[in-house]
Amino acid sequence: MQTILYAIPAFGLVALLYTAIKSAWVTKQDAGDEKMSTIARYIAEGAMAFLKAEYKVLTYFAIIASIFLFYLGYVGEKSSPIIVGAFLIGCIFSALAGFIGMRIATKANVRTAQAAKTSLSRALNVSFTGGAVMGMGVAGLAVLGLGSLFIAFYYWFVQRSGASASSEEMEIALEVLTGFSLGAESIALFARVGGGIYTKAADVGADLVGKVEAGIPEDDPRNPATIADNVGDNVGDVAGMGADLFGSYVATILATMVLGREITVTDNFGGLSPIILPMLIAGLGIIFSMIGTLFVRVSEGGNVQAALNMGNWSSVALTAIASYFVIDWLMPETLNLRGYEFTSMGIFWAVIIGLIVGTLISIITEYYTAMGKKPVMSIVQQSSTGAATNIISGLSVGMMSTALPIIVLAAGIVFSYSVAGLYGVAIAAAGMMATTAMQLAIDAFGPIADNAGGIAEMSELPKEVRERTDILDAVGNTTAATGKGFAIASAALTSLALFAAFVGISGISTIDLYKAPVLAGLFIGGMIPFVFSALAISAVGRAAMAMVQEVRRQFREIPGIMEGTGKPEYDKCVAISTKAAIREMMLPGAIALIVPLLVGFGLKGVFEEVSSAEILGGVLAGVTVAGVLMAIFQSNAGGAWDNAKKSFEKGVMINGVMEYKGSEPHKASVTGDTVGDPFKDTSGPSMNILIKLMSIVSLVIAPHIAVRETPPPAPETRPDLEGAIQRVEKAAPAATAQYPVPAKQVN
Amino acid sequence: MQTILYAIPAFGLVALLYTAIKSAWVTKQDAGDEKMSTIARYIAEGAMAFLKAEYKVLTYFAIIASIFLFYLGYVGEKSSPIIVGAFLIGCIFSALAGFIGMRIATKANVRTAQAAKTSLSRALNVSFTGGAVMGMGVAGLAVLGLGSLFIAFYYWFVQRSGASASSEEMEIALEVLTGFSLGAESIALFARVGGGIYTKAADVGADLVGKVEAGIPEDDPRNPATIADNVGDNVGDVAGMGADLFGSYVATILATMVLGREITVTDNFGGLSPIILPMLIAGLGIIFSMIGTLFVRVSEGGNVQAALNMGNWSSVALTAIASYFVIDWLMPETLNLRGYEFTSMGIFWAVIIGLIVGTLISIITEYYTAMGKKPVMSIVQQSSTGAATNIISGLSVGMMSTALPIIVLAAGIVFSYSVAGLYGVAIAAAGMMATTAMQLAIDAFGPIADNAGGIAEMSELPKEVRERTDILDAVGNTTAATGKGFAIASAALTSLALFAAFVGISGISTIDLYKAPVLAGLFIGGMIPFVFSALAISAVGRAAMAMVQEVRRQFREIPGIMEGTGKPEYDKCVAISTKAAIREMMLPGAIALIVPLLVGFGLKGVFEEVSSAEILGGVLAGVTVAGVLMAIFQSNAGGAWDNAKKSFEKGVMINGVMEYKGSEPHKASVTGDTVGDPFKDTSGPSMNILIKLMSIVSLVIAPHIAVRETPPPAPETRPDLEGAIQRVEKAAPAATAQYPVPAKQVN
Repeated sequence: MQTILYAIPAFGLVALLYTAIKSAWVTKQDAGDEKMSTIARYIAEGAMAFLKAEYKVLTYFAIIASIFLFYLGYVGEKSSPIIVGAFLIGCIFSALAGFIGMRIATKANVRTAQAAKTSLSRALNVSFTGGAVMGMGVAGLAVLGLGSLFIAFYYWFVQRSGASASSEEMEIALEVLTGFSLGAESIALFARVGGGIYTKAADVGADLVGKVEAGIPEDDPRNPATIADNVGDNVGDVAGMGADLFGSYVATILATMVLGREITVTDNFGGLSPIILPMLIAGLGIIFSMIGTLFVRVSEGGNVQAALNMGNWSSVALTAIASYFVIDWLMPETLNLRGYEFTSMGIFWAVIIGLIVGTLISIITEYYTAMGKKPVMSIVQQSSTGAATNIISGLSVGMMSTALPIIVLAAGIVFSYSVAGLYGVAIAAAGMMATTAMQLAIDAFGPIADNAGGIAEMSELPKEVRERTDILDAVGNTTAATGKGFAIASAALTSLALFAAFVGISGISTIDLYKAPVLAGLFIGGMIPFVFSALAISAVGRAAMAMVQEVRRQFREIPGIMEGTGKPEYDKCVAISTKAAIREMMLPGAIALIVPLLVGFGLKGVFEEVSSAEILGGVLAGVTVAGVLMAIFQSNAGGAWDNAKKSFEKGVMINGVMEYKGSEPHKASVTGDTVGDPFKDTSGPSMNILIKLMSIVSLVIAPHIAVRETPPPAPETRPDLEGAIQRVEKAAPAATAQYPVPAKQVN
Repeated sequence: MQTILYAIPAFGLVALLYTAIKSAWVTKQDAGDEKMSTIARYIAEGAMAFLKAEYKVLTYFAIIASIFLFYLGYVGEKSSPIIVGAFLIGCIFSALAGFIGMRIATKANVRTAQAAKTSLSRALNVSFTGGAVMGMGVAGLAVLGLGSLFIAFYYWFVQRSGASASSEEMEIALEVLTGFSLGAESIALFARVGGGIYTKAADVGADLVGKVEAGIPEDDPRNPATIADNVGDNVGDVAGMGADLFGSYVATILATMVLGREITVTDNFGGLSPIILPMLIAGLGIIFSMIGTLFVRVSEGGNVQAALNMGNWSSVALTAIASYFVIDWLMPETLNLRGYEFTSMGIFWAVIIGLIVGTLISIITEYYTAMGKKPVMSIVQQSSTGAATNIISGLSVGMMSTALPIIVLAAGIVFSYSVAGLYGVAIAAAGMMATTAMQLAIDAFGPIADNAGGIAEMSELPKEVRERTDILDAVGNTTAATGKGFAIASAALTSLALFAAFVGISGISTIDLYKAPVLAGLFIGGMIPFVFSALAISAVGRAAMAMVQEVRRQFREIPGIMEGTGKPEYDKCVAISTKAAIREMMLPGAIALIVPLLVGFGLKGVFEEVSSAEILGGVLAGVTVAGVLMAIFQSNAGGAWDNAKKSFEKGVMINGVMEYKGSEPHKASVTGDTVGDPFKDTSGPSMNILIKLMSIVSLVIAPHIAVRETPPPAPETRPDLEGAIQRVEKAAPAATAQYPVPAKQVN
């Protein structure tokens, strides 16, 4: 049994070894001529400046949160101050994951540009390897962290006292481990929101003055905001996405472990099998993601998308097959969670359901945002009557695009529940997240290629270089859309798993909307994603305005800037984005952290008939539903507007006339794209972290707001109760059938 | 007791008498010169053409629905085919309310224009009296219909068999009465959605070609779509709003009655007091609304808004005071609903809470949409960088504006529940709706004044006429915003009351989000308002495109049209809007009607541990939460964009420069306003009806999907159970305290 426990961090170490080797390989590649290196250095420095500023602020946050956690852990009955250690390691690992991703991305971008001088194949190789370094780094850190902390806490809390795998001691061990997830997700929130604000403030600001007012192309070195714009791609799309998936990955595994503890089994692993299964599946996913990367190869003129799909599908399929054998070997034949019986094969099917849900939602997302498909074409058509109708149709496409993903998600919930109860819902999420390393590799490849294109443009490299990076970039736009779909689906399932875990730990047996305070909580929860989105969007608006004024000032005051003889002050624009991002991420971040505390502690004991934990459950349900809807709506509307605009580059037929770039309909579509920018890159993706973080905070405080303040008498003292229940059942079978006394209270 | 029952329809008759007298008075007023009457006739004919076309389609709908209802009523145990009669009367009354409103509005508009030649005071008098006719007509029909049907069904189902007020017979009587509400709300849905599509297709179409392309002012008689635009004001704002509030009014009273039946009391009214209280409060509200209209008087140069407020506040205050005495006289001192004890004074406080919630939400709505306030000014400021930033800030304002209303609503739910249980939540809604007649008078006054201005413009009346109607119109814009806030708040509370009633009738004792299918239902429900909005918005987009093409064609093909010598073909534009509205209202309407049937009947018996009624409860909760949020978001964003645009008429200071109509920022704000049009007048207000209608459909099918298929044994056969429970309680007090066997199952 020990062996299997130690295998988990070993998987993580293997991934980190891969990261180190591949990272060295990327660094060894040719970084091009001096002009290229200079631009790349600007971008790398800007990115690192942002990270440094962000991490400085987050250090203060981590200290304050640690004090609070220490206090909670100290006073609570079923908790321990050791949670602070887990929390801090979670923070550091998450920050480290962001750092690794940012560092490799800012190295790979210029090397991809240089490689694109030779061939498409080499350019793909460099950019995708960059992505893979990030993906493996994130997954490796997560599995290493979770695995080794679990071993430590298992030894400290459980094994030392000889307690069982489903004991209260194990509950405390896992509760302490939740700190790791809390740390990871907190950093992720700030990274995602801050990064999202950064990238869009720079992008919108650069476009509004550069493209619209001054009439110079994108990525033109004369535009002072162009470096900030390229930094933003790394800050938002690489570090933000990485932190998001790191958080989901950890939270999903953890939630499944917490639910697994409630399952009492007799197996060959000391009853630990339901707890360690999610970590093992994650470990397998890492190995098969590595194997999958070998399939990502393309020849000159070949299909890049097909190569990426090949890599993705092979890793997914191999993981699915392997999980069958692992589950069959590890798990006992039948299990029972909170009175719901299921089989080990049910767990396998839940993994498959998770994979299907993730895939379907990715495909649907692609349909709603892809060029040439009906939704985007409808926006293109409506651009002919101006910006207003373009916007109206984009909003309509975004809202409509919620239908299918929600149906898939709802079906996924019901099916995974029916095959393996709440453990099934959690394991479905874990299955979906198993190949996170590969997903991230594909995701991170996009912005690297995008950056490479920017560097090629700014360094005035030959046309064929830009053409090659454009091929990669176009594929990157599609993978960005599907990646967002994947991130939303995973966040939704993760939140549900956390939700189920929260219900278990807080000791409530229902979250009953029939009770007025719970219903009120649902409303409050539902409102939060709207307010959070509003804050994120208006933050971008404000920051973009500041950027616009700075760029205008430089155009006005720096002599020769438009002729290319005067040098723009890139650093000023970088500083504006950095400052705005750091400042504006505070309030939304605080909301996500504080609302669960306010509800959980503030309403404790206020209502006689409803516990604050149950009301908090209502809030979480509201946040999750509205958050998932707003995430899909905003991300897809933004993606669709973006591609409606891009459709004009090759020309589109509207009312029998071919319209190209520069036409009136195209201008209308540029307005739509600008509206969509904060939707798809700031507020939309932030929803994922919002719902996860609020669930994790709730899970962390769950033992402190639990309703079982006077613990029920131990089973052996309550034979009378069971007898009485049997008598009740005999007397009135109909009534007790309707209101069963929950099984877990009895045993 | 009989007296008090008969008093209820008598209140309705008084209101209708008032309607008849005041309607005759309006008709007697001078309709102006021939040009004015001709234009007014065009508008009236267009409005009636729409109503005729709409009612024709709805006749088919009513027939199909009747067959289905007859079948349900026939096969069900706790139902009766008589529900078809109630349903049809509900349909007819709702249609009649729309007809009365439309007819008086299209008479009052031209007479207001004529009166404005003399004085502001006379113009207000005519337009407000027109509104009052509509308000009293709607309230009168509702109270007359509900009151007399209740008397009939009470006699038929209850009194004949000598059953008590809380008997199963009474349950059937009220279930049949629900048909009236279903009829009212179904017609309301189509009126609201169809009207909303009509008005915005005409408005957007008229603006895009007339104002933007041809550069002619609003309401210019050369614009072929101008009549359709003015018809739209009546179709959407008058008939649509009227049907919406008619539906809310009826549904609220009914839901409270259904909950009231579950309260067993000993009073001087045969135990009927909790059932008839909501009807009595509504009747009182009518009388005090009439008295309130007397306060709406203004002198030349006086404050119109203050006059309307005076009328509103006096009717609200008088109703509140009167309800104290009625409750004190009618209700027993203590009551009990589903185990929740409360006092008669608790009911009074619930009324007050309802009034406060409605008022606060109206005030908040006004803040977010009023000129000169911070939210609108932020949109104005962001217009300086173009349409994109204008749109972004409008979306942000709309999302942010959900926060306070939801907090108020949540507090309202919790407080009204704590003073009088679920009956309190319902009575709060009833209290809020009591002065519906006055609310509607104030609401309908706006579009009448708006139309009067249009007629003045088209008839080229002297400048001071337009100035006077503009004063009224400006106030009308504010009342429209607060009216929308009121409509949303009332719909939300109504839905909650219906939700509570549904829970009672369907026999479920929890709606537990902890069960996976219920959670999946919550997701599905939450998605529906997004899809519904998307359909409504895209319908406007399509219809507006058709309108644009028609107006362009007329400008191109009719000689002398721009010089005023060629006559535009107004009827063609009217026909386009009419056809589009009728066609496009079908699908969203069908969704609202069919989803509850699919979930309720389709999932019946599918899940062992969860009833379809409980899943449907989850769906309803999702619809209500997301629907209320989307209603507030869309209505307020639209209102704010509108007033941001209007701010430029008097000039605004942006970055130190005064900007006026015609400036670049103003053009950006016109784009925002166009985007906001379908938001605030089509999809936003449709949310209200969507959530109510889905709740009512669920309430109607509740007895057919009820979980108590094998009814629990009658109390007298179950002494054993009570004894056993007492023994259980003795054995393990902690466990049973946590899982009380619900009281209603025991008695």
